[in-house]
Amino acid sequence: MISNNNSSCSQQTKFNLVQVKGTWIRQSDQFQLAEGKLSDAKIYENKSEHGVSWTVVSPVVFTYRVIQCKNILDPTNDTLLWGHLGEEELKHTLSNCKPPKRFVVIDENVNKLYGSQVSQYFKARGVVYKILPLPTTEENKCMELVTKILEEVHEFGIDRRSEPIVAIGGGVCLDVVGLAASLYRRRTPYIRVPTTLLSYIDASVGAKTGVNFAGGKNKLGSYVPPVAAFLDCSFFQTLPPRQISNGMAEMLKMALMKHRGLFELMETEGRKLLHTKLQVCKTRPEQEDSATAIIRIAIETMLEELAPNLWEDDLDRLVDFGHLISPELEMRILPALLHGEAVNIDMSFMVYVAVQKGLLTVDEKNRIIQCMLSLELPVWHQDCTLELVQKSLKERLKHSAGSLRMPLPTGLGTAEIFHGMIGDGILCQAHKKWTDELSSSGDK
Amino acid sequence: MISNNNSSCSQQTKFNLVQVKGTWIRQSDQFQLAEGKLSDAKIYENKSEHGVSWTVVSPVVFTYRVIQCKNILDPTNDTLLWGHLGEEELKHTLSNCKPPKRFVVIDENVNKLYGSQVSQYFKARGVVYKILPLPTTEENKCMELVTKILEEVHEFGIDRRSEPIVAIGGGVCLDVVGLAASLYRRRTPYIRVPTTLLSYIDASVGAKTGVNFAGGKNKLGSYVPPVAAFLDCSFFQTLPPRQISNGMAEMLKMALMKHRGLFELMETEGRKLLHTKLQVCKTRPEQEDSATAIIRIAIETMLEELAPNLWEDDLDRLVDFGHLISPELEMRILPALLHGEAVNIDMSFMVYVAVQKGLLTVDEKNRIIQCMLSLELPVWHQDCTLELVQKSLKERLKHSAGSLRMPLPTGLGTAEIFHGMIGDGILCQAHKKWTDELSSSGDK
Ligand SMILES: NC(=O)c1ccc[n+]([C@@H]2O[C@H](COP(=O)([O-])OP(=O)(O)OC[C@H]3O[C@@H](n4cnc5c(N)ncnc54)[C@H](O)[C@@H]3O)[C@@H](O)[C@H]2O)c1
Ligand SMILES: NC(=O)c1ccc[n+]([C@@H]2O[C@H](COP(=O)([O-])OP(=O)(O)OC[C@H]3O[C@@H](n4cnc5c(N)ncnc54)[C@H](O)[C@@H]3O)[C@@H](O)[C@H]2O)c1
Ligand SMILES: [Zn+2]
Ligand SMILES: [Zn+2]
Repeated sequence: MISNNNSSCSQQTKFNLVQVKGTWIRQSDQFQLAEGKLSDAKIYENKSEHGVSWTVVSPVVFTYRVIQCKNILDPTNDTLLWGHLGEEELKHTLSNCKPPKRFVVIDENVNKLYGSQVSQYFKARGVVYKILPLPTTEENKCMELVTKILEEVHEFGIDRRSEPIVAIGGGVCLDVVGLAASLYRRRTPYIRVPTTLLSYIDASVGAKTGVNFAGGKNKLGSYVPPVAAFLDCSFFQTLPPRQISNGMAEMLKMALMKHRGLFELMETEGRKLLHTKLQVCKTRPEQEDSATAIIRIAIETMLEELAPNLWEDDLDRLVDFGHLISPELEMRILPALLHGEAVNIDMSFMVYVAVQKGLLTVDEKNRIIQCMLSLELPVWHQDCTLELVQKSLKERLKHSAGSLRMPLPTGLGTAEIFHGMIGDGILCQAHKKWTDELSSSGDK
Repeated sequence: MISNNNSSCSQQTKFNLVQVKGTWIRQSDQFQLAEGKLSDAKIYENKSEHGVSWTVVSPVVFTYRVIQCKNILDPTNDTLLWGHLGEEELKHTLSNCKPPKRFVVIDENVNKLYGSQVSQYFKARGVVYKILPLPTTEENKCMELVTKILEEVHEFGIDRRSEPIVAIGGGVCLDVVGLAASLYRRRTPYIRVPTTLLSYIDASVGAKTGVNFAGGKNKLGSYVPPVAAFLDCSFFQTLPPRQISNGMAEMLKMALMKHRGLFELMETEGRKLLHTKLQVCKTRPEQEDSATAIIRIAIETMLEELAPNLWEDDLDRLVDFGHLISPELEMRILPALLHGEAVNIDMSFMVYVAVQKGLLTVDEKNRIIQCMLSLELPVWHQDCTLELVQKSLKERLKHSAGSLRMPLPTGLGTAEIFHGMIGDGILCQAHKKWTDELSSSGDK
């Protein structure tokens, strides 16, 4: 006896919802609608001899802005303070005479470099602010840091509707603050200001927040996008080259999965851009330079994949390329391996799997590995053993509704998602070739 | 300079998103769509001399079932194990041969009463299960309890897609487990089995989860609905009468705000139903009895108000009636006052405010207070001072985008939402009358 299915003896009615003078009224599909605001939500009522049941189907619309800008810490630039608002909202907010309030969480290292500029910005704008510098490292990325932020936010006091929490730092800082904000009063708006290349092109563009838990990478978190992400490349100037390479790994992921043009740009210009830290040099202002182009395409392709799937309800995700084995690897060799580096090792191995499956030619593989090396990314790691690979894929299988859903390149800039488990033979051969060819790649 | 608005010098393009063979492609509105799945998400791109910005608008659809059933702990009843699935999903799941796994969190007191039945159910159904009894009281409703659940869930191990966490207990248990589930792997499905009247008609029907924090009621939480709520009235048999009254307060809220018929049922039948603990007595099986009717209408009206506003984006909410002053009062006199009791004191005072504003007649007020008393609900409290009222309304004002948005009854079963601050004169007079007339109501 299942009392909730649409069996023949039960009777289903679909209800629309109309708001009339502040009161929501349900109305069956057959009847004329009352005058009022019609909701996109529906209620399906089922009556049977076992009782009544209702199914609620309700869409919640998430809206957020991703804004590229220059000189974000210049007090004459409105973006940091008001960029999250549209024209109308801004007018309304400015008509309110009390001074704005901002709670700012900043990565400790970023604070050393930019903290005084941040203070000066808010001081110059007459903002009541508090800046909380935190050691937002991968090892500290846990619930305790979230609680610390929540306590400070609560003590400072902000308006849950109009005073967004601001996060300035790398992906760890943005993820931790995002989680704190999504919990506070069940959702408080927050703003992401990425200061690493990786967080600029990845963490800032989507809805995910998270912390590590029980030895597992991002095991706790939420899908609540920021109200806005403000992207300013000039923060990259103070990044060590290794952090630039790190971000380039996530760019390369998008290139391999869906944009041949991006791959070719990275292949030819990547190394140069690594050394100029993607700073724009305007010799021919009428033309988009390669730094601007590479960043723009990385964000466009990322947005394309993330926007339609904010809550990851669709399990088939190209952006998971490089993220099947890497979480395990990353947590295991923390802090020696950066996120993008772990992703790159994963991708490098998967390229060999693709060759083994006949999806990529040896030539294409060589170009990809060559590109990775030119970006100074690791392409192999001794801890990425066949056992670790198999364990990771089994974990993946367990959490993807019984199908592996493995994105693999099928050419330079095209990909497909494979559902069945990869045979042990293929994995084993790929792993052997990968190790034979690349295990000495680090000994330069 | 605001670089993100649609000023005249910038150029906006709207993009649709189409999925072709696993890859999402953005396409401007003007062009022919490629063949593929069209997403409801849109990307608006703005180019100006300051750079590019994007606005993402992406709806996420939440679906959940609310199922009334009998004998939920009877091993021949499928609901507890499979009621969250539709026919097709169930077929697919049953074709999988491994035994199902369930992690169950149960209120400690409920466990004493029903724990062995719960074990027997899962044992009889061949489920691999773990039951975690917890002291889910209002005083313990905090993040530590969430963490405790997360650790146990993690150790037990469940499939993030197909093995929902089950919560059995009152509103505290359902709220805490809901929050833990919404955090675990950024969202793990969970099931609500309410065992109090209050949680049956309220906490089970919506999306809210939460814990208390820094002395504030439900200050942390999320808006993630369960996959299903299974409602079985027979749990009420073991509730003390005070807990039935407690739940009736939230029913009365819906009656006052939007359903005269429900109010009249409560007025005439409420007291009797309180003493029969809303147990259905089928003397005339062809007719809906009053217990069934009262519960059905309470849920229908609650669903109407909650379904179109799952994330509380609309700040005008009738369901907030009774919840403007009560959170402060409740946290202050914990544990002497139950949630519904605090809500009822708030409603009782607001009824006087409505009379003072000329919205309700004295006769209507008397009927409402009389009904509350017949339901054995407190209608006045000495700690609900004028100062507390004013402080609560000021807090509310701060968190409702500058407008009070106070729902008030305008008759028996009709209401309106008032936006401006209520004058101190009216508040003061209402409070005086309220105290004069009702302060001795408890001395029976
Ligand atoms: N939410 C998402 O969608 C998403 C996407 C990708 C990655 N992530 C997460 O992001 C994290 C990795 O982010 P990350 O690579 O930015 O690491 P990170 O936050 O640890 O920052 C890297 C280092 O650079 C320093 N730093 C930051 N900005 C600097 C600057 N401008 N100049 C000098 N030093 C600076 C930091 O102090 C830190 O030591 C991972 O935890 C990953 O899970 C999240
Ligand atoms: N999420 C929501 O939308 C929502 C809505 C309303 C209330 N709430 C929350 O719910 C909480 C109040 O819920 P509650 O009133 O159910 O309180 P509760 O969970 O504290 O339960 C009340 C008491 O009854 C006991 N109990 C539960 N079921 C029993 C049974 N069948 N027989 C005997 N004893 C039983 C419990 O052990 C407890 O002592 C508050 O924290 C409130 O914030 C949440
Ligand atoms: Zn990544
Ligand atoms: Zn309530």
